[in-house]
Amino acid sequence: MNMNFNFNNPTNILFGRGMLNELGRQPLPGKKACVLISSGKSTRANGYLDRTLEQLKIAGVDSVVFDKFTENPLKEHCEEGGRFARENGCDFIVALGGGAVLDSSKMVSSMAANEGDLWEYAKGKPFQNAGLPIVTIPTTSGTGSEANCSGVISNLKTQEKIGFGDTRNIPVLAIVDPDLMKTVPSKYTAYQGFDALFHNTEVMISTGLNLLSEAIALSAIENVAAYLPRAVRDGSDMEAREHIAYASTVAGITMNLTLTTAEHSMEHSMSAYHHNLPHGAGLIMISKEFYQFFVDKHVCDERFIKMAKAMGIKNADKPEDFITALVELQKACGVDNLKMSEYGFEKDEAMTLARGARSMQGLLYTSNPCEMTDEDVAGIFEKSYH
Amino acid sequence: MNMNFNFNNPTNILFGRGMLNELGRQPLPGKKACVLISSGKSTRANGYLDRTLEQLKIAGVDSVVFDKFTENPLKEHCEEGGRFARENGCDFIVALGGGAVLDSSKMVSSMAANEGDLWEYAKGKPFQNAGLPIVTIPTTSGTGSEANCSGVISNLKTQEKIGFGDTRNIPVLAIVDPDLMKTVPSKYTAYQGFDALFHNTEVMISTGLNLLSEAIALSAIENVAAYLPRAVRDGSDMEAREHIAYASTVAGITMNLTLTTAEHSMEHSMSAYHHNLPHGAGLIMISKEFYQFFVDKHVCDERFIKMAKAMGIKNADKPEDFITALVELQKACGVDNLKMSEYGFEKDEAMTLARGARSMQGLLYTSNPCEMTDEDVAGIFEKSYH
Ligand SMILES: [Zn+2]
Ligand SMILES: [Zn+2]
Repeated sequence: MNMNFNFNNPTNILFGRGMLNELGRQPLPGKKACVLISSGKSTRANGYLDRTLEQLKIAGVDSVVFDKFTENPLKEHCEEGGRFARENGCDFIVALGGGAVLDSSKMVSSMAANEGDLWEYAKGKPFQNAGLPIVTIPTTSGTGSEANCSGVISNLKTQEKIGFGDTRNIPVLAIVDPDLMKTVPSKYTAYQGFDALFHNTEVMISTGLNLLSEAIALSAIENVAAYLPRAVRDGSDMEAREHIAYASTVAGITMNLTLTTAEHSMEHSMSAYHHNLPHGAGLIMISKEFYQFFVDKHVCDERFIKMAKAMGIKNADKPEDFITALVELQKACGVDNLKMSEYGFEKDEAMTLARGARSMQGLLYTSNPCEMTDEDVAGIFEKSYH
Repeated sequence: MNMNFNFNNPTNILFGRGMLNELGRQPLPGKKACVLISSGKSTRANGYLDRTLEQLKIAGVDSVVFDKFTENPLKEHCEEGGRFARENGCDFIVALGGGAVLDSSKMVSSMAANEGDLWEYAKGKPFQNAGLPIVTIPTTSGTGSEANCSGVISNLKTQEKIGFGDTRNIPVLAIVDPDLMKTVPSKYTAYQGFDALFHNTEVMISTGLNLLSEAIALSAIENVAAYLPRAVRDGSDMEAREHIAYASTVAGITMNLTLTTAEHSMEHSMSAYHHNLPHGAGLIMISKEFYQFFVDKHVCDERFIKMAKAMGIKNADKPEDFITALVELQKACGVDNLKMSEYGFEKDEAMTLARGARSMQGLLYTSNPCEMTDEDVAGIFEKSYH
């Protein structure tokens, strides 16, 4: 266990049902908001956009709306959003939506304050100017992106999907209102809930784990295991929604303390090559074989046992118990039989995916509890293939 | 369990052995520091002051030193410190020391930027101007004051000791380096370690407990119970020091999430009337009877059981198990027999102390898991009297 840590979580998080109604009473970081939403209908149809604009009005803030974001954050939308915010004289960003909108908001924020090609920045060129301040209002439970400075972004032309993060882009305020998640369809509730789970399970096996990230991650894992099947079965079970929203949001904190692992690199490679694959679904497909790899190596037995206990196997005493708990949770959420083949994957892609994972997000490999070669990764893809 | 919470912890915490050596590389919030230390010899003798000034120099920062603080933060020292910072043109504060110095730094910060009588502000008058930014470097493990905006302050003339907090005074940076705690004498290690424990146990029984404060508090409690006897026995046991420093610092986070209870009001009354009583010692003296009161009422049985488990009673199944664990830990740390009489208390002071507790810090009573009258409080003081 790592005893050193850097706790840097400046986002003021207001968590709870009905909390959107408190937005108008908060000190806000500007006078004109660029409100980012997805291109789908739901943010408008559910009244979330109107309620947000109304709250901004109460706070004495003008707003314009940019509504182009699709299921995965795309380079061109972030560039266009940045220009839109600048041309409209906005001095802060409000991101209202799922993971794609929240992730995008960070790039939009920086692009509003900087010239040039986004992809160069995404690949590591530093932004000269700090971005616009960001307020996040998640409408899904999964990415934890509401409380950290990072995101993933796709370039359809180059078939790349990479992570980025400028610490200056950490949101100043996050309103996490589980009521806004009530209408998420069952399938996506499961995908996103597992994304939240894996953020925490990856932190748990990470070389960067410390006492604080462990305490928070175990609490999040316990809550996902206990409540995700209920939230998937009945989306209006608000008690379950609250607990899943909690697990998702605090994963944002654990990920600020401890880097996640190559499971995320692997999924980003999958959805870079197969753009219609939801992030959470991709993670679920490879998860059993990914964790099995480390279970077999016995590189962090105690941590697997702790996770298995948090997931309800009270007498867990071997790392395999975590795999048992994971598979049971997948069954309870109806996602134990997702097929890579249904998203157009071919079995002989495994090495391409493995190389893509390392080249797009090699940093996360340093968090793995032991070495994992491209051959190992390809093997995990192959075993996961159905 | 409260599902709503407000997570507001903007302090950038660098935690770990040797971390003081990183201070010079951090972005600092000004060009001239007012370094606050205690009036004792140790901060200078141990080289902590020189090392801090050297690091500030590396960061390109000028410094002046104000060294008047005694064991409890006093009104006049905070006023004088504020004037000193202002007259020397300082634009930020560095608080290097124990809880008294860290607590004082918040008042010094505000007094440097505001005119008037400190006691009026302490009693609730709002400061017109934001204080100077604060950097904290704790040299003890106890108050958690390095990562929150609050403190307690005493007025010797009026025999009052009250808590205060202006959210604008939350430190921007905390360097928590367990190496700086190596020289704390055994007795004080025990007092301060129990202070850290009670911050977390009070959060655990508080009406304001939520999932996140519970997760962090239980982790802190587990670490105090496991490592405090070692740190008390051998101050140079750095592994033990690290774990206690962790518990103390994260209590600062749990206290930002959840208010503590009347145990702290009661102790503040005790040390207001008996100024030589160390805060942690006062808490230890009343702790058994304080928690016994709620155990007997069965108002939060499950929470006591969770704490007992965290403290090592694996098969805990009744609230009394927490009392057992608490008394055992006191014995293991040699503080099971502290006597109020040795600090000049008389048994018939009980009601005076009780009234003082409510009038000085009545707010904390709202966190108690059930009503607690002045008669109840006086009863706890009486039963605790030796
Ligand atoms: Zn993810
Ligand atoms: Zn205390």
